[in-house]
Amino acid sequence: MSFDPAESTGLNQTAESAISADGTPDYDRTYTIAPRTGIATLLQAGDTLTITNPSGHQVCDFWTFRYPGITEYLSMAHTHTALDSIMPKPGDVLVTNNRTPILRFLEDTSPGIHDTVMAACDLPRYHQLGVSGYHDNCTDNLRMAVAAIGLSLPAIPAPFNVWMNIPVEKDGSIRWQPPVSEKGDFVRFEALVDCVAVMSACPQDLTPVNGLDTEPDKLTFQVTR
Amino acid sequence: MSFDPAESTGLNQTAESAISADGTPDYDRTYTIAPRTGIATLLQAGDTLTITNPSGHQVCDFWTFRYPGITEYLSMAHTHTALDSIMPKPGDVLVTNNRTPILRFLEDTSPGIHDTVMAACDLPRYHQLGVSGYHDNCTDNLRMAVAAIGLSLPAIPAPFNVWMNIPVEKDGSIRWQPPVSEKGDFVRFEALVDCVAVMSACPQDLTPVNGLDTEPDKLTFQVTR
Repeated sequence: MSFDPAESTGLNQTAESAISADGTPDYDRTYTIAPRTGIATLLQAGDTLTITNPSGHQVCDFWTFRYPGITEYLSMAHTHTALDSIMPKPGDVLVTNNRTPILRFLEDTSPGIHDTVMAACDLPRYHQLGVSGYHDNCTDNLRMAVAAIGLSLPAIPAPFNVWMNIPVEKDGSIRWQPPVSEKGDFVRFEALVDCVAVMSACPQDLTPVNGLDTEPDKLTFQVTR
Repeated sequence: MSFDPAESTGLNQTAESAISADGTPDYDRTYTIAPRTGIATLLQAGDTLTITNPSGHQVCDFWTFRYPGITEYLSMAHTHTALDSIMPKPGDVLVTNNRTPILRFLEDTSPGIHDTVMAACDLPRYHQLGVSGYHDNCTDNLRMAVAAIGLSLPAIPAPFNVWMNIPVEKDGSIRWQPPVSEKGDFVRFEALVDCVAVMSACPQDLTPVNGLDTEPDKLTFQVTR
């Protein structure tokens, strides 16, 4: 009956994704997140993280965890209260499950349509969509990316689904739509405390969240200071 | 830096709220949740839980955890995916962070306005609202109610805020509104697996979520089979 949030349901190259033993990045280097995989990077307070969408149609599931002691993490539910909004925009300060400011949203070249209410995809989701056997998924990418730098996921926080287009209607109903972002769009965040950032290039290929008639694609990121 | 999700930031009578040593309820008994406090109750698969709002204006922060091994729990973010909606209604099946069906929403005598995107209130929230010193809060009520039956909270899941009225506009902005429920309204759920249900009579008295010009009030509940 016990459920281990850290236990991956399968493996992909995310398990070998460490950019260094503890996730410390090379500043100003452009790292590529291969399609369907994830990567974790350490950020020191004051560092800037830029996530770029080369194809324009690729969603990034995004999490941050205070470091060390990653039991405090970016929380969408607490951020909704902080922002009086479910749609973060540049200038906003995103907060943790203990309401600590963790990220400042600095810049967004896209039209600003993102999702903060949907869980990351996981293997049970793909099985419910009719897949048999393994399917890459953002939750396993999160688990593996964190494990790859020697940490263990304490819980599965709801992600900041950058560029995911999930309109919420007045009656609460939602729709799964393709992104409205364009080639080369990027988002930029400042780390307000030391933290681990994890990005997954979402492998969803059964709903149009990563574009109509397209394949999951890569993302890139850079850390600067 | 390490954050313990189980550690209460203060105490109230929730710490003494155990309805029995392990939370096993007396069937058909009406239990009262005192204003500003919480209670945990075990539910066996097939049991029915009815939560009643005597004043009509009192919000119930509500969580369920699979039992034993409470690391799998009702997840609003995963439930949004399951329902294609952020507004659960009778007939809906609510799911866990591992997408296991955990509750069936059986009945709702209120107009059906509830919140599933906001975090539970906590002491940092009240400090941000200008309170100095301790203020009762739903997160501590959750921690204490779980501890009162001998368990330790593994994480702080986003709650199902029953009767909380937080309209979400097309641009993502939200407003904090009084409940539209009326005296004696109730919601009823069927447990689909063995679980612990926790209810907190929200002590928020600085925003109108528990009604305009009103005080936080009691709730009641019954378990039947």
